[in-house]
Amino acid sequence: MFFASDNAAGIAPEILEAIGRANTGYALGYGNDEWTKRVERRFAEVFERDVAVFLVPSGTVANAQALAHVTPPWGAVLCHEHSHIAVDECGAPEFFGGGIKLIGLSGAAGKISAAKLREALAQGQWGGPHHVSPAALSLSQATESGTIYRAGEIKELSDIAHERGLAVHIDGARLGNALARMNISPAEATWKAGADVLSFGATKGGAMAAEAVVFFDPARGANMLDRRKRGGALLSKHRFIAAQIEAFLERDLWLKLARRANDMADRLAEGLKAAGCAPVWPVEANEVFAPISHDADKRLQAAGAVYHEWPPFGVSLPAGRVLVRLVTSFQTTAAEIDAFLRALRG
Amino acid sequence: MFFASDNAAGIAPEILEAIGRANTGYALGYGNDEWTKRVERRFAEVFERDVAVFLVPSGTVANAQALAHVTPPWGAVLCHEHSHIAVDECGAPEFFGGGIKLIGLSGAAGKISAAKLREALAQGQWGGPHHVSPAALSLSQATESGTIYRAGEIKELSDIAHERGLAVHIDGARLGNALARMNISPAEATWKAGADVLSFGATKGGAMAAEAVVFFDPARGANMLDRRKRGGALLSKHRFIAAQIEAFLERDLWLKLARRANDMADRLAEGLKAAGCAPVWPVEANEVFAPISHDADKRLQAAGAVYHEWPPFGVSLPAGRVLVRLVTSFQTTAAEIDAFLRALRG
Amino acid sequence: MFFASDNAAGIAPEILEAIGRANTGYALGYGNDEWTKRVERRFAEVFERDVAVFLVPSGTVANAQALAHVTPPWGAVLCHEHSHIAVDECGAPEFFGGGIKLIGLSGAAGKISAAKLREALAQGQWGGPHHVSPAALSLSQATESGTIYRAGEIKELSDIAHERGLAVHIDGARLGNALARMNISPAEATWKAGADVLSFGATKGGAMAAEAVVFFDPARGANMLDRRKRGGALLSKHRFIAAQIEAFLERDLWLKLARRANDMADRLAEGLKAAGCAPVWPVEANEVFAPISHDADKRLQAAGAVYHEWPPFGVSLPAGRVLVRLVTSFQTTAAEIDAFLRALRG
Amino acid sequence: MFFASDNAAGIAPEILEAIGRANTGYALGYGNDEWTKRVERRFAEVFERDVAVFLVPSGTVANAQALAHVTPPWGAVLCHEHSHIAVDECGAPEFFGGGIKLIGLSGAAGKISAAKLREALAQGQWGGPHHVSPAALSLSQATESGTIYRAGEIKELSDIAHERGLAVHIDGARLGNALARMNISPAEATWKAGADVLSFGATKGGAMAAEAVVFFDPARGANMLDRRKRGGALLSKHRFIAAQIEAFLERDLWLKLARRANDMADRLAEGLKAAGCAPVWPVEANEVFAPISHDADKRLQAAGAVYHEWPPFGVSLPAGRVLVRLVTSFQTTAAEIDAFLRALRG
Repeated sequence: MFFASDNAAGIAPEILEAIGRANTGYALGYGNDEWTKRVERRFAEVFERDVAVFLVPSGTVANAQALAHVTPPWGAVLCHEHSHIAVDECGAPEFFGGGIKLIGLSGAAGKISAAKLREALAQGQWGGPHHVSPAALSLSQATESGTIYRAGEIKELSDIAHERGLAVHIDGARLGNALARMNISPAEATWKAGADVLSFGATKGGAMAAEAVVFFDPARGANMLDRRKRGGALLSKHRFIAAQIEAFLERDLWLKLARRANDMADRLAEGLKAAGCAPVWPVEANEVFAPISHDADKRLQAAGAVYHEWPPFGVSLPAGRVLVRLVTSFQTTAAEIDAFLRALRG
Repeated sequence: MFFASDNAAGIAPEILEAIGRANTGYALGYGNDEWTKRVERRFAEVFERDVAVFLVPSGTVANAQALAHVTPPWGAVLCHEHSHIAVDECGAPEFFGGGIKLIGLSGAAGKISAAKLREALAQGQWGGPHHVSPAALSLSQATESGTIYRAGEIKELSDIAHERGLAVHIDGARLGNALARMNISPAEATWKAGADVLSFGATKGGAMAAEAVVFFDPARGANMLDRRKRGGALLSKHRFIAAQIEAFLERDLWLKLARRANDMADRLAEGLKAAGCAPVWPVEANEVFAPISHDADKRLQAAGAVYHEWPPFGVSLPAGRVLVRLVTSFQTTAAEIDAFLRALRG
Repeated sequence: MFFASDNAAGIAPEILEAIGRANTGYALGYGNDEWTKRVERRFAEVFERDVAVFLVPSGTVANAQALAHVTPPWGAVLCHEHSHIAVDECGAPEFFGGGIKLIGLSGAAGKISAAKLREALAQGQWGGPHHVSPAALSLSQATESGTIYRAGEIKELSDIAHERGLAVHIDGARLGNALARMNISPAEATWKAGADVLSFGATKGGAMAAEAVVFFDPARGANMLDRRKRGGALLSKHRFIAAQIEAFLERDLWLKLARRANDMADRLAEGLKAAGCAPVWPVEANEVFAPISHDADKRLQAAGAVYHEWPPFGVSLPAGRVLVRLVTSFQTTAAEIDAFLRALRG
Repeated sequence: MFFASDNAAGIAPEILEAIGRANTGYALGYGNDEWTKRVERRFAEVFERDVAVFLVPSGTVANAQALAHVTPPWGAVLCHEHSHIAVDECGAPEFFGGGIKLIGLSGAAGKISAAKLREALAQGQWGGPHHVSPAALSLSQATESGTIYRAGEIKELSDIAHERGLAVHIDGARLGNALARMNISPAEATWKAGADVLSFGATKGGAMAAEAVVFFDPARGANMLDRRKRGGALLSKHRFIAAQIEAFLERDLWLKLARRANDMADRLAEGLKAAGCAPVWPVEANEVFAPISHDADKRLQAAGAVYHEWPPFGVSLPAGRVLVRLVTSFQTTAAEIDAFLRALRG
């Protein structure tokens, strides 16, 4: 009953095996190895176009360096006010970007609406040179509220952004979960919908420590090698990070793992609903936000369930309820869900 | 015959097994796990004192964040002019330090002498506020020339540094190799000799991607958690980086692996000397710098040997010779050495 | 009829004369001159305590360096969401602070309330290390809405801030205007009310280009000399910036000039009220925010009046009205006010 | 007898008068004024081409922002090892450039030779991405040793730099002195010889606090407005900095003032030579470096002469001599020179 985060899960067996298989003989460091070359080609296939790919060991550094690469120091990144980059990365984008500014936009269920983005661009004070200039739009897919942007929504937001010269970044720490839900291709959910740069997440999905920054226009990735190195994010025994990603992408493992996590979230959501604790936001990925009673909370904790309380962010909870975040992963089992629901009901 | 770098080696089996053993059940992310707690205690034992330890995935980020933590933006780091931090990290210390300055000191065989350090501190233009102020001394152990600082040398340099208020940093990417050679304790080679902060290397020694920043005065590590996070160097599935270090330290595995690499370097050095290519700098760790003839160079490359040519840095080579760097690792075999020497001799 | 900004005014004659008087003979550069020493002593008198003073040529650099000096890179500055530092300095605090984060708090009439500050500190996600940590509270005196904080208000806010370990900064670009209104001493309005560091403004008040960063605990100013130099804000012919400030402080010139500006603002406000355009926020310094009709707007512009339209920031304007900001200065004359009011009335 | 620095001089009367003349009526702030527009046009005339001009209050911020604008964070600036940017600006270029690296090249009399530049580019370790990449060449005109680069020398160095894609920056804090000596046009000494960006100095030449960053290709100045603002270097009452520069350029005042300073340096040099203290480097601008006896040093100081001792930088001094730097300015009189020489001779 461990629902604290999907990063509390371990390594998917296929990925751990791939690390082991890569552990033979010698390979040049810093990405000059066959695993890395293969993974670069594989990304091009997955996204159906040439891309520039840079593997890094954490989602925070992926986001921060991706944003720094498309935002000048006097630029602003528009993002959801509760997004990971705005709240949970201790100012990493500001640091890597040389003091860029993140502008948090409000929006229900963790999502930025087209209307809100238009308003921010129209009514904000920009440039001049007294004000920062909007340089990037960052969307979280899935969002921090467990919801997802449909391809059409991304397209609409991207069009607004591009019209004003902003680059579009997707924080895809849980991209697999979003894709598994939508049943559209990686290309459709990213560059075909207007994304310029993607933080492709593998760690939460089942890897040990592996993320990728993907530029859909390879020219945009020029000098990212230098940024990654001086940002401390270039691993020396690079074949092992590449091997993780390779296994993750192999025969759509990432989507299979994501689907499993999503299925568990659905099972959990249904049980919560049946128990009168219907999730407050649509369950579209692997996160469930449920208002439970204080008694249930106590029972669950006593039973050993692990999860975090969460701010309701504008949702009004029934009296006597607390909002909790429950995150499933590829590792979650139906038995865990059922045990949780039993403890919930008391 | 792969001598390009010790990061071309793989993962030591004991360490890979430890990753596998850690891959069971759930664990809270970001260092809130049992592996991390154990490894922190283990470091205290290894260094015979309370320390503050921060695990990070690359040596570059370990060095850069360690230096940034003990150097104000207007500070200077004195280091060897050919040190890794000065030459090979693409400006990472400058970036993480908010624009600190690295002052490269010359010195034979990759080492800074006490006289040179005294001269730099006495004759440099410091503070005022027109000039930067010396804030840290960084020593590489082993050096980029494969030599090592004896404990007495570190003590003398540290005393000079401390007298002027500088912190003493050791880039210990190959600390194990140095220790294995000297047969002194980790404490004797570091804080007992005056070191304040250490980049403890495990990757080159046999880990997959694991380094540690160790503050010998734990108070000095205050807020390093924040720096690591915003620097993108906090891994989410942290148990796996901790498990690597735990196995590395377990029953002195790190020293055993280092000793094996050193032994291979010695074997190589002897063979080179016998072949008239005596190393130009003392072989004290796992790096051998040998002047070989252009013909031998061709023969070796034809035979599949992999290594880098190296600038002679003030050493005058015999005519017709080129300096090459040969790095051994825990993975190097006597058979590889012997094959190399055969190809060398032609 | 020039009400665009108080920086559109010229140099007060007394200050220009002081520059001229200082233009004799030689003086060592960079602050090693008698004018600077005198001005430092004068600040101690004005504030009735030892202070550390650093003269700089712009308000932006004063604010940004003051904040950077009391905020670590992983720190947050809490400020009003419409404050100059948050909106009008193109990210200077973020840049000088190495990527610090500014957290904008809402509040009527440009002011932060104690309740709002308490809420932000209590409900925000801080530290951890996933989140930035609150490090400073910045108050604008007078505010961007032309209102002022009374000493008791500053005290209450400072107490809340200090309890959480935050430093208290005052952006005093218009401190003179606030003081002239309150008739309390500089000490009472700053450190006696809890301020730790002050951006002391002289430019808007009548100087040519002269501001001062004042640390009320001189120890807190340690190394600010270095920060100022490397931030490009140390003037070489320093006697001339010191001479400006000296004249500004001489026989309370700054307060006299501020009083004149305030009086003109009052005259303007009265006239506006009489004309049915009562200011939307209390006129407590030298800025008047008045809702005028579109017709009046046209008439005024046709008559040559210069001012900026302003966002109403939550105030609902009568239909057909536009909010305009009218800033008076020491240079404003009653005749200008009266001409403006005539044009307004048509 | 004040030879400590040319920034110890005051304001040239013509420039002070211009400030006074500008002090009438109102003018929009931040450069939106007539003085600024005129000065921009004037620069285009002076340099015989369209340029992008940005006025700033200090030479340090001019250099640092100019370099930051043409150097990516992973870039290196090649400069003389004793240049002002490398030694005397407390790391400002590193700070403004986000951690760029300055590579100091040795060279006699403060000058970089073509051979040295070629060697540095050929033998340095660049890019890769382990190493920083050379991005700019910075030349000081006149140099810190009081020498100057002839147009042909600049051309040769620029050609080498441009071939490798480096931008060429001139630190022209004393450009007027160099031009006055060479009797060539500003265009010939800058962009016609290959310079891309210039820190145009006025302060040392006679202004109060006024410098300009000049991009010879205006497109290269894009977004410099933003950089200047967030760097705290945009003055609000901008007409007064523009008025200084306007007067400085008016009827070649800058060259007349520089010529006066140079003449005084020549007079001083001749007297020193006659007294057996011939300057160690050619006196080509307004700085004289003379080896004087300890006795003479004492006599001069007793007589009230003010100057700095200087490191001999590779020049071997006669026994019993100390090297002193003597800087003349537009304000220096023949009487001062003669009094100095009398005291020197004893």
